[in-house]
Amino acid sequence: MFDKNAVAKNPPMGWNSYDYYDTTVCEKDVRANAEYMAKHLKPFGYEYIVVDIQWSDPDAGKNRPQEQYISFSHICLDEYSRQLPAENRFPSAANGAGFKPLADYVHGLGLKFGIHIMRGVPRYAAHTHMKLKGTDATANQIASPYSISKWNGDMYGVLHDRTGAQEYYNSLFELYASWGVDFVKVDDICNTNMYEKNPYSAEKEIEMIHKAIAACGRPMVLSLSPGPAVIEKAWHLEKYANMWRITDDFWDNWVLLKAMFERCEVWQKHVSEGCFPDCDMLPMGRLGKGFLHERSTNFSFDEQKTMLTLWCMFRSPLMIGAELPLLDKPTLELLTNPKVLYMVTDCHGARLVTRDSEHAVWTCSDNHSDDRFMALFNLSEQEKMIEASLQDLGILKVSALEDLWECRAAEALQIRKMTDESPVISAVVPAHGVVLYRVKV
Amino acid sequence: MFDKNAVAKNPPMGWNSYDYYDTTVCEKDVRANAEYMAKHLKPFGYEYIVVDIQWSDPDAGKNRPQEQYISFSHICLDEYSRQLPAENRFPSAANGAGFKPLADYVHGLGLKFGIHIMRGVPRYAAHTHMKLKGTDATANQIASPYSISKWNGDMYGVLHDRTGAQEYYNSLFELYASWGVDFVKVDDICNTNMYEKNPYSAEKEIEMIHKAIAACGRPMVLSLSPGPAVIEKAWHLEKYANMWRITDDFWDNWVLLKAMFERCEVWQKHVSEGCFPDCDMLPMGRLGKGFLHERSTNFSFDEQKTMLTLWCMFRSPLMIGAELPLLDKPTLELLTNPKVLYMVTDCHGARLVTRDSEHAVWTCSDNHSDDRFMALFNLSEQEKMIEASLQDLGILKVSALEDLWECRAAEALQIRKMTDESPVISAVVPAHGVVLYRVKV
Amino acid sequence: MFDKNAVAKNPPMGWNSYDYYDTTVCEKDVRANAEYMAKHLKPFGYEYIVVDIQWSDPDAGKNRPQEQYISFSHICLDEYSRQLPAENRFPSAANGAGFKPLADYVHGLGLKFGIHIMRGVPRYAAHTHMKLKGTDATANQIASPYSISKWNGDMYGVLHDRTGAQEYYNSLFELYASWGVDFVKVDDICNTNMYEKNPYSAEKEIEMIHKAIAACGRPMVLSLSPGPAVIEKAWHLEKYANMWRITDDFWDNWVLLKAMFERCEVWQKHVSEGCFPDCDMLPMGRLGKGFLHERSTNFSFDEQKTMLTLWCMFRSPLMIGAELPLLDKPTLELLTNPKVLYMVTDCHGARLVTRDSEHAVWTCSDNHSDDRFMALFNLSEQEKMIEASLQDLGILKVSALEDLWECRAAEALQIRKMTDESPVISAVVPAHGVVLYRVKV
Amino acid sequence: MFDKNAVAKNPPMGWNSYDYYDTTVCEKDVRANAEYMAKHLKPFGYEYIVVDIQWSDPDAGKNRPQEQYISFSHICLDEYSRQLPAENRFPSAANGAGFKPLADYVHGLGLKFGIHIMRGVPRYAAHTHMKLKGTDATANQIASPYSISKWNGDMYGVLHDRTGAQEYYNSLFELYASWGVDFVKVDDICNTNMYEKNPYSAEKEIEMIHKAIAACGRPMVLSLSPGPAVIEKAWHLEKYANMWRITDDFWDNWVLLKAMFERCEVWQKHVSEGCFPDCDMLPMGRLGKGFLHERSTNFSFDEQKTMLTLWCMFRSPLMIGAELPLLDKPTLELLTNPKVLYMVTDCHGARLVTRDSEHAVWTCSDNHSDDRFMALFNLSEQEKMIEASLQDLGILKVSALEDLWECRAAEALQIRKMTDESPVISAVVPAHGVVLYRVKV
Repeated sequence: MFDKNAVAKNPPMGWNSYDYYDTTVCEKDVRANAEYMAKHLKPFGYEYIVVDIQWSDPDAGKNRPQEQYISFSHICLDEYSRQLPAENRFPSAANGAGFKPLADYVHGLGLKFGIHIMRGVPRYAAHTHMKLKGTDATANQIASPYSISKWNGDMYGVLHDRTGAQEYYNSLFELYASWGVDFVKVDDICNTNMYEKNPYSAEKEIEMIHKAIAACGRPMVLSLSPGPAVIEKAWHLEKYANMWRITDDFWDNWVLLKAMFERCEVWQKHVSEGCFPDCDMLPMGRLGKGFLHERSTNFSFDEQKTMLTLWCMFRSPLMIGAELPLLDKPTLELLTNPKVLYMVTDCHGARLVTRDSEHAVWTCSDNHSDDRFMALFNLSEQEKMIEASLQDLGILKVSALEDLWECRAAEALQIRKMTDESPVISAVVPAHGVVLYRVKV
Repeated sequence: MFDKNAVAKNPPMGWNSYDYYDTTVCEKDVRANAEYMAKHLKPFGYEYIVVDIQWSDPDAGKNRPQEQYISFSHICLDEYSRQLPAENRFPSAANGAGFKPLADYVHGLGLKFGIHIMRGVPRYAAHTHMKLKGTDATANQIASPYSISKWNGDMYGVLHDRTGAQEYYNSLFELYASWGVDFVKVDDICNTNMYEKNPYSAEKEIEMIHKAIAACGRPMVLSLSPGPAVIEKAWHLEKYANMWRITDDFWDNWVLLKAMFERCEVWQKHVSEGCFPDCDMLPMGRLGKGFLHERSTNFSFDEQKTMLTLWCMFRSPLMIGAELPLLDKPTLELLTNPKVLYMVTDCHGARLVTRDSEHAVWTCSDNHSDDRFMALFNLSEQEKMIEASLQDLGILKVSALEDLWECRAAEALQIRKMTDESPVISAVVPAHGVVLYRVKV
Repeated sequence: MFDKNAVAKNPPMGWNSYDYYDTTVCEKDVRANAEYMAKHLKPFGYEYIVVDIQWSDPDAGKNRPQEQYISFSHICLDEYSRQLPAENRFPSAANGAGFKPLADYVHGLGLKFGIHIMRGVPRYAAHTHMKLKGTDATANQIASPYSISKWNGDMYGVLHDRTGAQEYYNSLFELYASWGVDFVKVDDICNTNMYEKNPYSAEKEIEMIHKAIAACGRPMVLSLSPGPAVIEKAWHLEKYANMWRITDDFWDNWVLLKAMFERCEVWQKHVSEGCFPDCDMLPMGRLGKGFLHERSTNFSFDEQKTMLTLWCMFRSPLMIGAELPLLDKPTLELLTNPKVLYMVTDCHGARLVTRDSEHAVWTCSDNHSDDRFMALFNLSEQEKMIEASLQDLGILKVSALEDLWECRAAEALQIRKMTDESPVISAVVPAHGVVLYRVKV
Repeated sequence: MFDKNAVAKNPPMGWNSYDYYDTTVCEKDVRANAEYMAKHLKPFGYEYIVVDIQWSDPDAGKNRPQEQYISFSHICLDEYSRQLPAENRFPSAANGAGFKPLADYVHGLGLKFGIHIMRGVPRYAAHTHMKLKGTDATANQIASPYSISKWNGDMYGVLHDRTGAQEYYNSLFELYASWGVDFVKVDDICNTNMYEKNPYSAEKEIEMIHKAIAACGRPMVLSLSPGPAVIEKAWHLEKYANMWRITDDFWDNWVLLKAMFERCEVWQKHVSEGCFPDCDMLPMGRLGKGFLHERSTNFSFDEQKTMLTLWCMFRSPLMIGAELPLLDKPTLELLTNPKVLYMVTDCHGARLVTRDSEHAVWTCSDNHSDDRFMALFNLSEQEKMIEASLQDLGILKVSALEDLWECRAAEALQIRKMTDESPVISAVVPAHGVVLYRVKV
């Protein structure tokens, strides 16, 4: 019996091609990033190599900057309306091999292989009445002409109550299983309030995909995008998916990072084995080449620590957006701090302690001791003292504090003698920065 | 120099196939209705015979009741992405004749011929990169994959800033002119706030259509649908179109009829030569066959008088929705009351006098005398006395009243002696009904 | 140190005067209900007697049916802008005794005493610049003239950043503590998105109230009303209040009951010691007298079981709306089924298993064994079979089933042999009804 | 019989105290401005001197910058709940004289006198159950506790269906008539969608005010504020008021000025004798003293010409916001260009010709000849050529052009020979500026 939660006991960690390559990633790029990961990141838990959007379009990116996705491009399809890798970009896919050779290579490095797909069936297939595998129905019979993405013109949504609909999705994941895919990021589907419901239903399409994964015989992580996911539908996402985006696309912009604190508050009670609200990729290192806007991240070092602390404590998936072979040493060190990454795999129960427009305090609990972790975030524009009481942390005493980013013991405990207040842990925190403590009891 | 206002000096009057046939009207039906009109209605000013939606789909209506429009149907196109009449439904269109033979027949009866089109370019043409006439651009190059109708799956909006866009519309109207078309109802375009604007613009698409009509060399009435049109864009509609729908589809339902009073208030100052806010077809007589819901109108006789009085006084276009050969005598008499129809052609300045949830009073002015017309509408569920003061009508005295529906002189004037009130004209009006006076000064 | 969660370790259970009396409850009514509770309900855990809205208005209800609350009524105030019980309605409050004598009486029955207040400061006090206790500031200096309730005209919101604001709230709760109040339902404050934020803040007013309770020296349950509470602010409510309404006022109407299932889904992860999302009073028995609409509940017996099952499993507070002395025996039995009430005090982890428009399945866990409780709700209009798989319940095997409403062993387990499905528990459930099982492992 | 349109045959022109004084204007300030107007502006048509908001508050402005209006201030009231001028600010109002002495002074200068009021009845009067004149009802009986302004705390809306409501308004205007008031600006009422309708109705309150003016025996201009007025209610405003604001408060900010072009488009067909959509005061000269932000207008000279041209052609009321005694000569000349002001009194039929984000062209017609006026507005950030065709102006030929701001003959006519285009009038216009022509035929 398929247990989707067993596929992702901890938040998936890896690399995704989008932030650097946009739609243009090619086979050699994927290999280079995988090789870097195997060597430098795998020891710290990073393992997924994910090929993001538009791998079936031979011309992807050629109409930049006019458009991100080429309208009405003739993407590569097999006879059953299924997308295949564009061979000019992925040479090993020649002769119908699909992504199998590339997945094999990634597996050979000890890593796992993931792909992106847009939900739905290709518009071209619907308009030309193409065949589907395992059913007499044709693509036009399962497609909704009214269910389109707002930002990509390739697909129509699939109507779950049509004959052939489940068979179509089954045929997709059968193909992906044959390639050796370990992770599927399904796009244009996560925020199920984004599109009108009648008769198309994004929720039902998620269920079809879940069933197709269960039926395909190979465990795959199911990642849903883009956000913001709808909190009212948390139970549905927890039942059918492994990770789901809780914001729209995240980039190297402080306003977006600050806003993530509110999103994590909303979703903090919805993190569990196999169920990970997703803060999106980490836009660190070199970014934006495929967008014709190559740059080093706009985030300061303090902001990157803030981001990593929040992502790790909240147990968001950690997918690196950087071009890995171009990572500099300080960035690599941020990404591989074992005392911070420990929270991703060995903590639980992250929750907001206090927040206002100028600061936030979060805490989580160690799986293996009574220790607590506490992050003091400075959301303001000036260095300031941030504090939290032991009472708010839910503990009675502290024996020692360890500063996890600075890797040193800290002396930050204040005992207040005021009538109604408990002892307080505090730190002076730089603007946009964080101090992260292991609080030993 | 093309003056679009000269094409429709008065509100267009005629018949439209939609209310009875939905998508299924055929050549013989059009001919039968035209013959009836020539014989019974033409003397009263009715002259347009309009073939409504989906005439290019050979299978139109075959998937009722599952769907109104057949998703991904292969509609008839010429080599330049232009729709042609389905020959199985319009036999005279064989051999590339298009609607010319049918238009000729209608013209031969002394009438005018109109067609419906969906704005945009066929989706099929875009996905298969079909040619366009008069340009090297292909259909995919002018189509927006994000501009679709919410209720019909045939077309994509045309991006006005693309090479070939104006040429495409020019080629359409060149074809329609060659057929002898006198009236074009362009659908999915009137409410320019209905769809997001960037980069597609319904307003720019209206302008392209206007230019194409100007360029085609044949005068054509330009009718835009569906509503509600946006009052903030009145100037734009008045500049480029002849009539535009001021509500969503209107049917034989009192709630919709009552709501039309509010819409007419909003638009009352925007009626002028060549510019007619459109209250939609008159759902009288036999209706609904193509919708699998054939019936006689649900409107009572009083409600039909209310509707006709409002439409005529407001100078809305008058397009009959009934199957004409099945008209009964009383309905025909309603439609051909010359004293009521007089307002359509020989009055101006219709305006609301007073309205609340239970009544409305409207007035308009005669073009040829100082007489006024006054309609006392009872919007409530009981018979009641309705009245209006001469002051509100803007006149000082009354010499006689003529009841235009009852065709008799009326005695309804009351002189009130109260300090601050002027003489009052009144009538006892049945629920949902109207009394319409010519007020002679 | 004040721990607000310790005040309500389990969901509060009791009686509230609103559903029967509206604004008109008097001292003798409160006593009669308290006496009934002490005798018939206390053994099952019910203990709070709550006097709801408008106890300071001598004329409350006298302008029915024109208005629920008397506009600009001169409510009873002490010299410090604090409301006092109207002595004509609560005779024991004479001579400045306030609610102390009545609270003493309730305490003497072994019960607890609660009151309702509107958030804010009396408008009359602000306009006449009345004094506040413990500060030189006057009522006009802490009131916001723009923060009013949409449905009651008595109060203005208090601006938290004004001198005297916290002192005012402290003075209120000091008074309530002196009376012996155990429970305060603060109204017009729970849905913090209901009113504009600048500069007034409902969230800050909640915090002031929390602080005033902490300072007053007497434990009091803090109940916030009306809903719907905002899920994005769950952490704030959990930090400062004990219970908060998750819908607008709930009444004996199936549409409202069905909608509660969606609300409970949203809030299911936010139930913990001291923190209870509130489904509102139980509109059972005799209702509506003060509303001039006295009746027995419109809920069928099946609907009442559905309601009680959901409230108990979800661990909503259980506040009876009925006039207790008029309870009939079957209703009393519904309210005192010990096997159902067991879930309120001895279970945890209630969660939705599956839901669609026609059914819902919920489960929760026993605190003292590995047993599970499972409720199969029929939300449709016909009797139907409802089922849930053991896998969805998260258990592997079942040794026995006990039907808790019928109080009998049940035989409902089906073992399906299909490839991908686990054993299923099912029941035939009447329309709008429920079957509730203890699932023994 | 009262004809409200006869009171304002042309758009009212004058001065209003708000833009310079905010709430703080005093008697000597009003006299100084009146004296300036009598000497310098009256010959050009300016005649109204309007005392704006808060003249009954002795402390108005004393709590700046904390608040614009003093919350819960004890404004001056007579025994019938009617506001009186604060005598410390208006000494001639002593001994119950009200505004009569000041109005007499203004009249003595050959000018007219206006006041501002907030709609409704004082909150204080409602809470203290004060008397009303001409009725036994008291203030609490006609006030709605739920109808408050969003920005001023003085008043409650009056419920039109209550006994005493019309009598209250009659008593107000009886008092104003006794003072000699010629113009009343009623505030917090124009945008009738701003507040919820049930049971309070801003529309009904407007009707009560209209009736009170009709009953008071003295003609008064009725000006409604603030906007944006609701175009769907144009007929109601035209029936009951003389001028109504079509935007929120207008200030010396280009974004607001540019936005006014869209508002004027919407309202262009609703200008007629006695009916003037109002673009708000002209923020020219010295501004903002009472706001603690005294300055000369932020508008450039070109922007001021653009504003005056639009206001004059559209026939908006022209109420100067500047402190008149501080006007400099160039500003005075802008305000008194007789060839531009001619449009206010002697033209009609202003309408938009074309507009996009970078330009607008408007035209209007002379009442006394076939000449047209045409304004070419440059809405962009660079100088550019703007043009309009004779066809769009609706004329066939041009004999001469006169540039009305530059006061010289112009040579701007271009005859285009292109097939479908008519002769074009054009000008090179500075950024944010305008060229205004009289087009002689």
